[in-house]
Amino acid sequence: MQLPSNLLENAVNEFSRLPGIGKKTALRMVLHLLKQEPETVQQFSEAISKMRKEVRFCQRCYNIADTEVCSICANPLRKQDMICVVENIRDVIAIETTQQYSGLYHVLGGVISPLDGVGPDQLTIDPLVQRVQKEQTGEIIFALNPTIQGDTTIYYIQKKLPQHAVKVTTISRGIAFGGELEYADEMTLARSLANRLPVESYVANK
Amino acid sequence: MQLPSNLLENAVNEFSRLPGIGKKTALRMVLHLLKQEPETVQQFSEAISKMRKEVRFCQRCYNIADTEVCSICANPLRKQDMICVVENIRDVIAIETTQQYSGLYHVLGGVISPLDGVGPDQLTIDPLVQRVQKEQTGEIIFALNPTIQGDTTIYYIQKKLPQHAVKVTTISRGIAFGGELEYADEMTLARSLANRLPVESYVANK
Repeated sequence: MQLPSNLLENAVNEFSRLPGIGKKTALRMVLHLLKQEPETVQQFSEAISKMRKEVRFCQRCYNIADTEVCSICANPLRKQDMICVVENIRDVIAIETTQQYSGLYHVLGGVISPLDGVGPDQLTIDPLVQRVQKEQTGEIIFALNPTIQGDTTIYYIQKKLPQHAVKVTTISRGIAFGGELEYADEMTLARSLANRLPVESYVANK
Repeated sequence: MQLPSNLLENAVNEFSRLPGIGKKTALRMVLHLLKQEPETVQQFSEAISKMRKEVRFCQRCYNIADTEVCSICANPLRKQDMICVVENIRDVIAIETTQQYSGLYHVLGGVISPLDGVGPDQLTIDPLVQRVQKEQTGEIIFALNPTIQGDTTIYYIQKKLPQHAVKVTTISRGIAFGGELEYADEMTLARSLANRLPVESYVANK
């Protein structure tokens, strides 16, 4: 693609580094910005640079925060003795969007995956173990993706947790709501048979 | 979607104003930027704001330029008496990418479309007419989209052009290369029959 301006080309190159954006889409975005008022574009540019410079990670749960402690940890209405362990910030957002969980979080920053060079030391596992001891946590809920790596991580953390009365659970795996048995993979179907629920509890949750 | 940080939310909102970007894609982009080095993000942000502030429009052809006159107009190897009239900058880029055209351009900034509130005064038609007189242009090639609005614009401009020996042509319309007759719409097929080419010229261009 031959661009008539170096300034334009720079901007297109920068946009095309974003995930899922090719040169043509990048050009479309840049030409869109070119049509906007200079103040609008300035605002766009500043929002990005400010976000990168000023966003911090919560010192307690490693979630994204504007201050030292994130808004979830700072909320006294949240159950302080329940921690939901997730892989990344996207998962926190997904669970928060359900509006069904009222405890705290702990963001691991990934899962143990030797093939990708991710060991326990790269994750926030030690801070989690210390936190559980310090905060006298009553329940830990693992909400990790149902992969070998996710299961390995759960197993590893569970072994490291203090042997006091902390309850460790994981979100249930099974056929997705609205899904069809016919199209479910064997692993999921087999697991959801093995982890079958009493009908009373299932009906009560509806 | 509940976001844990206002800074993050601002950035996501700004991204989701871009064409074709929803909230989820915007969040993916913002989290990607959050993982990059602060300098990389600063560079991204500056490229955009600089582009909007400093990009100019060529005083001769209204193409995008870094200087007063764009690189195409400033190139002495370009045929100075041939103007290709296009709707927007994207069309200039598309034609330049073919590397088959060696004349100059004129960017109209749109086509006449009363329904969208675009009249001849919003476009660079008057500068084009003056330019043709001043530069003693030999040929004008219209490369507008084959729509009613495009055709109206061609007709309007042609009437305004000085009645001297300027040759006015339009890019040919017809079945796209590699396209199939069976799937072509009636208008295209009818037009390409009406504007049939002598086989010699077709073979010569191959």
